[in-house]
Amino acid sequence: MGKAAEYELYYWPGIQGRGEFVRLALEEAGASYIDVVRESPAHGGGTKALMALLGDDTLPAIPFAPPVLKHGDRVIAQTANILLYLGPLLELTPPDEAGRFAVNQHQLTLADLVAEAHDVHHPICVSLYYEDQKPEARRRAAQFLSQRMPKFLGYFERVLSKNRTPGGAYLQKGMLTYADLSLAQVLFGLEYAFPRAFAAFSPKIPLSLGLRDAIAARPRIRAYLDSPRRIPFNEDGIFRHYPELDA
Amino acid sequence: MGKAAEYELYYWPGIQGRGEFVRLALEEAGASYIDVVRESPAHGGGTKALMALLGDDTLPAIPFAPPVLKHGDRVIAQTANILLYLGPLLELTPPDEAGRFAVNQHQLTLADLVAEAHDVHHPICVSLYYEDQKPEARRRAAQFLSQRMPKFLGYFERVLSKNRTPGGAYLQKGMLTYADLSLAQVLFGLEYAFPRAFAAFSPKIPLSLGLRDAIAARPRIRAYLDSPRRIPFNEDGIFRHYPELDA
Repeated sequence: MGKAAEYELYYWPGIQGRGEFVRLALEEAGASYIDVVRESPAHGGGTKALMALLGDDTLPAIPFAPPVLKHGDRVIAQTANILLYLGPLLELTPPDEAGRFAVNQHQLTLADLVAEAHDVHHPICVSLYYEDQKPEARRRAAQFLSQRMPKFLGYFERVLSKNRTPGGAYLQKGMLTYADLSLAQVLFGLEYAFPRAFAAFSPKIPLSLGLRDAIAARPRIRAYLDSPRRIPFNEDGIFRHYPELDA
Repeated sequence: MGKAAEYELYYWPGIQGRGEFVRLALEEAGASYIDVVRESPAHGGGTKALMALLGDDTLPAIPFAPPVLKHGDRVIAQTANILLYLGPLLELTPPDEAGRFAVNQHQLTLADLVAEAHDVHHPICVSLYYEDQKPEARRRAAQFLSQRMPKFLGYFERVLSKNRTPGGAYLQKGMLTYADLSLAQVLFGLEYAFPRAFAAFSPKIPLSLGLRDAIAARPRIRAYLDSPRRIPFNEDGIFRHYPELDA
């Protein structure tokens, strides 16, 4: 594992998961980082590296779960917390304190939506397989798609609508922040998981889709999405396409 | 509504809910605050005041949901975000940046546990009644009590165990923070909701229970818990005692 990288990200291999919100911020900023667990075990990578970190009782704040970011002597867990830390370093959050709290607020609301989207396929417990909770998942999916997804996405559309400027509509008026990157990722994920329901709802969120498309067209994000670093969506992650759950 | 109070908290009336994590920090610090929605509508309170706030499109960061804190010209939503803001003002977080990120990390992990504890009685959707999702709730409760509660509480016990000093064991070594107050509240809530399962698990978390009891004995917290300001646990909040869900 090259020790020259400035940031080290630790996350489960094989899925985008919550690690993806961190990756998108690092990629947009062109930061030097290593996705540690995806490196070979011979070079300090692999799941073993993640397990060693999670089991390290000498850390000032032991992580409960990945993602975990290492930066110098800092070791930080919890997605929104990592982004709060990275925001100023990557210039993806406002320089003023009030703006940083606003962006953190949006990120936490997105985190709530992500947790609810995940639990559509795991309404009973994460430690059971989807196959062991399919009837419950079907009930939850109907509620999520008719109630919760519209409520959350309608809210973010309202925020964007209030923040329109000639330069575009962002969650934080006047600048692209890590919360916008996360919103774009949530929209990618919901469209992947629920293509029919998402298409039906899409006419109601033109600003959100415009933001998502503008982010996907940014040179570094576009290069990332087209690279092997971007793990494809799959049925092990947060956003899973099970046709029986789509409206 | 007296305008002399320094802080204004907006939260749903009648339940502790997520507002309680903010209340406990304000109470421990002896802060001057108003629980706005619990004031009379004639004095600017009531649910109408909350609805006006949630509908205010002129706010720099529109809240998705309560709790919301007003402090001077700041309007901040999302529980962990409010506490991140209040921490330094109430001296309930370390003065150094690394310490504040550590406390925020713990608070976010507690927020994850709170969301999972809530969804025990609402595994299908928050917009349906408990009575409409009882079989699913029963399945989820069994998983929560056998898998998730032990995992989370075992984790916090591990953190406390690593942080023991002659002055006590806290989530952030050497000082009481708002995350400790929140952990105590989660323990109160889990014991209320699942008295049998909690009693059975209790021998495994002596440091956590010691922290909880020490917090309950702090003069300002004790006075608060004994006052009418502390809303009793009930079956409308996050932590609900439905005997059929207890192991």
